[in-house]
Formats: sequence, C-alpha cells, structure tokens
Amino acid sequence: MNVRVLTGIKPSGTPHLGNYVGAIRPTVRASRESGIDSYLFLADYHALISTHDPARVQRSTLEIAATWIACGLDPERVTFYRQSDIPEIPELTWLLACVCGKGLLNRAHAYKAAVDKNTAEGRDPDDGVTMGLFMYPVLMAADILMFNAHRVPVGRDQIQHIEMARDLASSFNHLYGPHFTLPEAVIDEQVATLPGLDGRKMSKSYDNVIPLFAPREQLRRLIMGIVTDSRAPGEPKATDGSAVFQLYQAFATAEETAAFARDFAAGIAWSEAKERLFERIDREIAPMRATYDELMAHPARVEAMLRAGAAKARAEATPFMARLRAAVGLRPLDTLATMVTAMGTATSWGTATASTAPAKAAPPVFKQYREADGRFYFKLTDAKGHVLLQSTGFDSPKDAGQAVARLKAEGWAACADLHGAVTAAAEADKIEAALARLR
Amino acid sequence: MNVRVLTGIKPSGTPHLGNYVGAIRPTVRASRESGIDSYLFLADYHALISTHDPARVQRSTLEIAATWIACGLDPERVTFYRQSDIPEIPELTWLLACVCGKGLLNRAHAYKAAVDKNTAEGRDPDDGVTMGLFMYPVLMAADILMFNAHRVPVGRDQIQHIEMARDLASSFNHLYGPHFTLPEAVIDEQVATLPGLDGRKMSKSYDNVIPLFAPREQLRRLIMGIVTDSRAPGEPKATDGSAVFQLYQAFATAEETAAFARDFAAGIAWSEAKERLFERIDREIAPMRATYDELMAHPARVEAMLRAGAAKARAEATPFMARLRAAVGLRPLDTLATMVTAMGTATSWGTATASTAPAKAAPPVFKQYREADGRFYFKLTDAKGHVLLQSTGFDSPKDAGQAVARLKAEGWAACADLHGAVTAAAEADKIEAALARLR
Repeated sequence: MNVRVLTGIKPSGTPHLGNYVGAIRPTVRASRESGIDSYLFLADYHALISTHDPARVQRSTLEIAATWIACGLDPERVTFYRQSDIPEIPELTWLLACVCGKGLLNRAHAYKAAVDKNTAEGRDPDDGVTMGLFMYPVLMAADILMFNAHRVPVGRDQIQHIEMARDLASSFNHLYGPHFTLPEAVIDEQVATLPGLDGRKMSKSYDNVIPLFAPREQLRRLIMGIVTDSRAPGEPKATDGSAVFQLYQAFATAEETAAFARDFAAGIAWSEAKERLFERIDREIAPMRATYDELMAHPARVEAMLRAGAAKARAEATPFMARLRAAVGLRPLDTLATMVTAMGTATSWGTATASTAPAKAAPPVFKQYREADGRFYFKLTDAKGHVLLQSTGFDSPKDAGQAVARLKAEGWAACADLHGAVTAAAEADKIEAALARLR
Repeated sequence: MNVRVLTGIKPSGTPHLGNYVGAIRPTVRASRESGIDSYLFLADYHALISTHDPARVQRSTLEIAATWIACGLDPERVTFYRQSDIPEIPELTWLLACVCGKGLLNRAHAYKAAVDKNTAEGRDPDDGVTMGLFMYPVLMAADILMFNAHRVPVGRDQIQHIEMARDLASSFNHLYGPHFTLPEAVIDEQVATLPGLDGRKMSKSYDNVIPLFAPREQLRRLIMGIVTDSRAPGEPKATDGSAVFQLYQAFATAEETAAFARDFAAGIAWSEAKERLFERIDREIAPMRATYDELMAHPARVEAMLRAGAAKARAEATPFMARLRAAVGLRPLDTLATMVTAMGTATSWGTATASTAPAKAAPPVFKQYREADGRFYFKLTDAKGHVLLQSTGFDSPKDAGQAVARLKAEGWAACADLHGAVTAAAEADKIEAALARLR
C-alpha cells in the first residue's frame, strides 16, 4: 500500500517566489515520487474563519488552484480537490466533535495566543474569537482522518494540530472500533527560505515579495530593485549575504551556481548579475506563467479540474463515511430487520423494548490475539463461549481490527469479501444475531 | 405564506403516557392545523452528544419514528425527517460557527451548569464536556435556520438556544445579506403533565412511568398498581389529587370526565375506577399500538418514510444551501468568467491580480430607500452614479433586501423571476459586471 500524504492549502493571498521555492515546488516534486499517494486540497472552509469577504474567497481559490496546476501539480496523478466540495468533511467534523473533550481545544496554541493577547490588552479573553477559530483543530482532524492520511507535512506551528488529530482518532477508535489511521506530522527542518527585495526573508508582512506570476517586465523591474551593497563593477563581490546570489541559487543547477560565484569573485556588475538572475528565474517561471494566465482566463477549466478531483476524493470519502456513520449508530433502520428475524422475535420486538429493557444476557465477544506464527487472529464467541467465527491469520493487527469493525458494522452476509479470511463456525443466522447484538 | 413550525425530537428512551399527553399528541394535532407548515425531525446528530452506544441510537431512532407515525403524524402532510439524512445541516453548522463568537457559547446555560458542577466538585471546569455539548446551540441554530422556521415550540430551558439562533442569523445576515428568518420561541405555558404510578409527575427519573405502547395486559397491570388512598368501595372519593382521576381526564371528553367525577362522589370502588381508566386509555391507544407494533416489525417501512421525508426536506435545503455557499464565497469558479468577460479584461485578469491589487475604482453600490407611497425601493448605480438597475416598490424592507441579496449572489440573468420587480436601466453586461464586482 502506498503512503498517503495529505497537504492543505489555504486559499489566501497571491503566491510569491518564496512560497514557490519553500512550499509549492518541493510539494509538487514529492507528489511525483513513486509509492506516494498525494492528497492536496484547497482549504476554503478554513478560509471562512479569517475572512468574511466572499469575493476574496472565490478569487483566492481560483488563483491558488491555477497556481498549483501551473506549477506542475498533475490532477490525474494526485487527488486535488476543494474542501467545500466534500460534504463528508463537515459531517465528520461533527462526529469528531462528539468525541473531543473541550479541554483539548482550550490548550490549542493558536487559541491560547488569542486569549493571552486579549488578556494583556485588558479585553475579554474570548474577544473576537469565533467558534470557527476554536473548532479549527477538529475540522483539520476531519480533513486528515477522512482520507486516513499517514503523513501530513506541516510547519512546526502545526505539530500540535496533528497530535490533536491523533488524539481524536484514538478516542474514536477506542469507542467505535479501529476505523482511523493515526497520522504523523512530517516536519521539513530545512525549508528553503528566500530573501526578499530588501534582503530580509521574503514575506508579505515585510512587503518585500516578488509575486510568482508577475508579468515578465514587472519581474525584471522588481529584480533590478533588489538591495545590494555599493561595490562598483570590477570589484569582487561577496556571495554570502547577497540576496541576488541566494535567489539565483534557488533556481540554478550546482554548475550554474558555481559559475555565478566565480563571476562574483571576478567583479561582475550588480546590474549584470541582476539581469542574469532575472533571465534564470524567468526561464523556469515563464512556461508556468503562460499556463497560469491561460487558466485564469478560463476559470471554467479550473472548476472542471476541481470537480473531477472532488469526484475522485468522494469515491473514497462517501463509502468511508457510510462505515463511520454505521459505527456511531446512524444506520439505515432496515438493518435492524436482520436482528429481529434472526432472534425469532419479530412480532414481540416492539412491545418487548417498549415495556422492558432488552435481555441482559452476556453479549457475544470478539477476541483478538497473536499466534506463534507472528500473525494476527480473532474469533467471535457467544455468551457460552461457543466459537461462531474464526479468522485465518492477518499480517497486521490493523487489518484484523478493520475486519472486526466491518463485521460488527455490516454483518456477516454483507462482508462476503472477508469470507476467505474469516470462517463461519456456526449457522449464519446465529452469527448475524450475535453481530447485530454487538452493534 | 404559511407559518413554518419546527420541532426537534431527540431519539432517546421509550416514550411514556406523559410524553404522549404533554408533547406528542398536542404536536401532532398542531401539525394538522391549516396555515401551518410543520417540520419535525429526529435529532440523531444531537443524540451522539449524550450516548456512544450505536445500537441504542439506531433502536431509539426506530422506536421514536414509529411512535410519532403511530400517534397520527402524517408524513404526507408534514416534513418528517432524520437530521443525519440532511448533509446540509453539518455544513451550515460550520458556516454559522464562523460567525459565532465563542463568548456566546460560554454563556449557554447548559454549558455553565456543567462547569458549575465540575467546579463545585473540585474538578477541571471542562471535565467531561465534549465539543459536541459545547457546540450544541450552533447545531440547533443550523437545524432551525436551514428551513427558515418562524416558530420553534420549546420548553423554558430552551429559550436561550432560540435566542442564540436569532443572534447567529442576525450576524450572518449582517455580513452576507438577509438570508435567514429570525425564529421565535413558542412557549406553551400550560404543558399538560400527568401523574405517574406513585402520584408524582410521570417521569423516567422517578421510575413511575407507564410506557405508551405497553401491551394491553401490561397496561392493565400497571394501571391496577397506581397508588390510591384507602377508601373502601361505597365511600365517596376525592377527585382532587387522585392520579386515577387525572389520568382519566387526560384521555376523556368533558362529559366522560363529569360522569367519572359523579361516580367518585358516589363511592365507586378503586378497582372499578382503575378498570374504567384502563379501558378508556386503551380505547385511544390500542389502534396506535397496533400500528406501532406493525412498524416495529417492519423497520424498512419506517426507513422508507424517513427517506421520503429527507427528500422533501432536501428539496428545500439543497438549493438554499447553494445560495448560502454563494453568499459566503464558496462559489463555482466559472461564475468569475462573467466578470472577466464583461469587463473586457479576459487576458490580463490573471496577471493583473497576480501582480497588483485589483483596480481600486469606486465599486457599484445598491441604495435602499422608502418612498412617499410607503413602499420599499432600491437602485444599483455604478461608480459614476449612473443607474444600472431600478426596482419597482416592495411591500416590505425584507423583500427588497432579499432581492438585493439574490442579485448580488446570482447575477442579473439568473434572477429572471425578479425582472418584473426590478428594471434594467443599462446594458445587461454592464449590470452583470457591476453585480460580479459586488460579490
């Protein structure tokens, strides 16, 4: 099984070269590795927390989607979708809210920071805090658990949210059976950062960014404006601490970079160095810019790609959600018919439950264990210890657990695909009745 | 337009005669009044807050649905659905969470009671409080606002939740236009309460209940066990404070009740009085019990009714949710195409937004006003004050506001049904471009 890697992209602001080098380019490259199933989504439900400007949400969603596709994300290869196209996500958010202690969210860093700021400034601790902000970790857990992601690449500030997703997955699994994979945060310790126009880290908050898809002429103008020292043409120049050099390095091969360093030592003029930097960046960006402009002029094409991505995502999310709903008890009522019939109490069922508590005999039980062969087994026994179902071995405890969960949720007949790995040791109606009691 | 009345029913526990007389019977009767559109739903998402027992959720949902139908609720006439069949409800819950101050929920009575109890017992204030419990008022607001209910009959303890739903509706309307009706709580000051087997109020917590659909023989046995005083046959008996008399009164006509009172005065034996009570109750309950037993033996029939109810509810919820999504900015990207084309900037759109902020010319503006004729008007003007759209008069400011909101969200061509009430005063593409800018 491939490793599932999930990345959320918040549609806010116009991407700049720093975003491209630090996040977009490495993520797109990683999505092309073999053995990886990449899930990337536009987190537009998240965007509603921080903006109440509908036009901005729509425009940013288009811009960011077009950017990622232009940068080489292959919607055929990865699963690229818009969060708000997956109605299973807000539904899962509710199921997780019901197993999430409020105390867990009280301890969230982002929330605590807002409270501390309010308190320091003499306001009510929750001033300006919406339930969207407070609930954000639960929505993020739903994003991750919906696709049973193994790995979630995040910045250090997001590690706690992945831990919360693990907590919620564990709580749910404990109460309802092993449905969720526990995700792991993947921290890239060496995120490439770029200097901006003024030499500080490129960041919107410093107002020193170079927009990723600035038109060619504007890109040249911006690059020509990068701050340098005052060494004259002919004077040797230091590569260390030179924004021009660092930007070049982020786009060039090792050979090109080495040649550029030699030119610095030989006293290249800043104007020429910047011209070379501009041409090198534009060489990489120009084809992507053309794709971006084309997509921005045809939003319907982007919309169609996102819809196709949503269909791919929902092909997994819809049946998985059906299993989760069954696990918590949101089940079609007619599945109760099996139970009633199997127990031979069809006519008295209504009155039996209306008048008295259901019979209190010991319930059937699933026992999971490991054998000397190193494989994982389970059996289902009735109240008297008679074996009803017996598994042959599973390679992992997770596989065994998932089989148990499905049998509990769906019954014996409905799990025909498990009939090789699990053997009936009693009449089918006894098995169904026992499984129905466990539901 | 009919008055929309919405009632949530939590699927928990087996209904008793007290529930029937106090809630089910009056609600079913009210649902048959003319001028009323009744929405009744099984609140199974709510049930997940208080129970993690999936079998109980499923069984209770069946029992409660069968009970209401057996008690005369007409699924053809009302909209009777299961909350978890409406995926728009958790989605709306998220949209409302993003406009809900956390402070509002901090002040919820139910949450504060849990905190007070924890504090008094020396525990962490949020001990055992789940996010489901904390978020409950937001989910309830989504239940109500999803169908723009005018009235919500509730007990006194729920008034605050209706006020919160009004608050959230107001906040959303303020930010995104007048989409939601503000609901009103309807408090029945004279809820009929019944005495239980021991003379105290019939309540599960007193363990003194008579199950609504107890089989006939069990019903007789329970009624024969009602506590009375020790007056012998022939001695006159007081009707005041007699559980037997009060129960009789709850089921009998005024004439029957008067006759029963005369028999009390004439010294009817308790055994005979109870026999008459049993027969009177059974006369009303027996046909319903037969329907209930039949439905409980055929859960698929109940399931089919609930699915039909969900289809009816979603026929409203789905298009309404589409409007709400458009209002907050979760919009198909291709609706941006209109804007780009209409402004004649298709090719430069991408680069314009990628490199600089969008043009900062004054936006078009909707002006709403009242004329001397007492009616409500609006017009849409462009940056230079040229009129683009002009309304004829509306009867209420709400109608005018809704028309404005729809024009903003959907555009001019899509609102063909408004073309009588609103007149174009410029070319259609100019109007569309102006509306797109306001989005």
